[in-house]
Amino acid sequence: MPAPAPSHPETLTWTGGLDGHVRMIEQTLLPTRHELLEVRGVPEMVDAIRRLAVRGAPAIGVAAGYGVVLGAAGAARAGADVAQATGEAIDALWVSRPTAVNLFWALDRMRAACAAAVAEGLGGQSLAERLLEEALAIHASDRETCRLIGEHGAGLLEDGTCILTHCNAGALATGGMGTALAPVYTAHAQGKRVSVYADETRPLLQGARITCWELQQAGVPVTLITDGMAARVMSEGRVQAVIVGSDRITRGGDVCNKIGTFQVALAARHHGVPFHVAAPLSTVDTELIEGRDIPIEERAPEEITCGLGRQTAPEGVQVYNPAFDVTPRDLVTSIITEVGVVHAPSLERMEEALQRGGRM
Amino acid sequence: MPAPAPSHPETLTWTGGLDGHVRMIEQTLLPTRHELLEVRGVPEMVDAIRRLAVRGAPAIGVAAGYGVVLGAAGAARAGADVAQATGEAIDALWVSRPTAVNLFWALDRMRAACAAAVAEGLGGQSLAERLLEEALAIHASDRETCRLIGEHGAGLLEDGTCILTHCNAGALATGGMGTALAPVYTAHAQGKRVSVYADETRPLLQGARITCWELQQAGVPVTLITDGMAARVMSEGRVQAVIVGSDRITRGGDVCNKIGTFQVALAARHHGVPFHVAAPLSTVDTELIEGRDIPIEERAPEEITCGLGRQTAPEGVQVYNPAFDVTPRDLVTSIITEVGVVHAPSLERMEEALQRGGRM
Repeated sequence: MPAPAPSHPETLTWTGGLDGHVRMIEQTLLPTRHELLEVRGVPEMVDAIRRLAVRGAPAIGVAAGYGVVLGAAGAARAGADVAQATGEAIDALWVSRPTAVNLFWALDRMRAACAAAVAEGLGGQSLAERLLEEALAIHASDRETCRLIGEHGAGLLEDGTCILTHCNAGALATGGMGTALAPVYTAHAQGKRVSVYADETRPLLQGARITCWELQQAGVPVTLITDGMAARVMSEGRVQAVIVGSDRITRGGDVCNKIGTFQVALAARHHGVPFHVAAPLSTVDTELIEGRDIPIEERAPEEITCGLGRQTAPEGVQVYNPAFDVTPRDLVTSIITEVGVVHAPSLERMEEALQRGGRM
Repeated sequence: MPAPAPSHPETLTWTGGLDGHVRMIEQTLLPTRHELLEVRGVPEMVDAIRRLAVRGAPAIGVAAGYGVVLGAAGAARAGADVAQATGEAIDALWVSRPTAVNLFWALDRMRAACAAAVAEGLGGQSLAERLLEEALAIHASDRETCRLIGEHGAGLLEDGTCILTHCNAGALATGGMGTALAPVYTAHAQGKRVSVYADETRPLLQGARITCWELQQAGVPVTLITDGMAARVMSEGRVQAVIVGSDRITRGGDVCNKIGTFQVALAARHHGVPFHVAAPLSTVDTELIEGRDIPIEERAPEEITCGLGRQTAPEGVQVYNPAFDVTPRDLVTSIITEVGVVHAPSLERMEEALQRGGRM
């Protein structure tokens, strides 16, 4: 009997045909309110991505693909130039967030699909339909990628393993069952007893708000800690593996992820706990080798000084708020991708995986 | 011309004579409200310590000394047995918080002063007066200890140094100018350009609320970050030293401090940044050699799930909330005490410092 499919919430869906729109979980309201956001135009999608109503590198890629369709379909309905509207939608979405490379990967894929369709002579509604097919394909492929990451990653988890994770790289960060949490869901569905420590992940608390929520929904035991507790928890022997997601991985294997990840990796190394990164190959920036070349988004000071309902720092205090950090490849035990597990990532091993995945 | 005395807020004071009481900054309201709390009895002092209205290991010691006086003076006014009331006050204050050893050190000192006075034949009001003298002496000695830590520590800071600190071990954690921040204040008063990165320090945000506030008041440039950012900030070359306080140091040199400190120490080691601990010798638990033997206070889950004005985790989530962690001596560059700087702390070097300080 095959293991039951793991259950997880649906982050975003395309409703109906070309006259449809995007329905997504409004993640800024979690965990106290579970509301759906209906996104019907390009500016609304840019806003949703910027506000983190949808977040997580793979989910941003899927959302961006659908965002392009919203622009193209709107132009088709208005009898305007669909190819031009597609280009404008891509430009608008391109600047919605700077770090997650999946955004640019998805937009490039939509641009190439548009160019190919135009070259075939398509325009108007038939061009928009082709773009919808492409966006749906991106989503389907993300779902399948998550499933494969789950299968490869679950092989690393023995019965009884407790996993520490940072931020949210679960179902709510993807169009499928997640990246970092996919091995957890898969192992759980296989009947292994797995449990999770979730870093709350300041400033925006994606761990507390989203990871805890989706693991609860799926029936996986989860314990919430603050970001400063990971080293203590490891020193007490409470975790046997770390799995995190990534917003951009260089061809050399350096891993950009939510701020705080680097410290988790240092704590894991000190305690001899394996540190795994789970990410689709679309997260790999093949242009970059060194992590120091990744642009790091700086976000508003208010996320730190009053992001939690009340002011927690004195008026006028200087704030530094980088949204991501870079964990050097030396601290990474493995990168779990849809084509398999890259152990002790190096330029050579990453390129080998990229070739297997058809990305080089 | 001597350097001007550094300016800092007054954490707590004893008002008047034996009919006086304790006036303290109500630290739970910082940084948005600066209010004074008038503490007139033992239960109120126990409550203030438990609620963290007064916090920081040395300040807790000073507050506990005064708390004993409140019990003794009340008994003297009521014509009750002052020695008995003193013992009861000590017992009540003893269980107010479990980790900071200065609390027990101060209470032991008050108990010894009481026993000595009783042996001299003192009782009633004259016994209570002797206890007030002792509590004032504890406070004065803490103030002088902070000043000496500031002088010794400032010698480690060159002009232009940027210091990262975790939690609050400043004026508001002591009866004087602080422990970890004393070298900063002293270097600043000496005309050195020093600046600070302050970890916000979840869950209770003592860094954001208190460290930022008191450094602003003193005119020292301070930048607020979240706890997950320290490693990133170090990797960008932004800090040249870490200084933290401590709630308990073993005779072997292991350092217990606010949860998150251990991770800062790991990040500092990775980046070759010196990691200093500033603490009076009263912080040393001479009974313990290994940090693993220090009891770690676990606090309420609500501090993490809704400590910031709104609920930030799903209902019913499991939480782990240790208030402290232990940084092993191997990661500690030096311990700055009132008798000098203990470089590369070891059992031998700690015992040598304790002997110099008359604690062994």
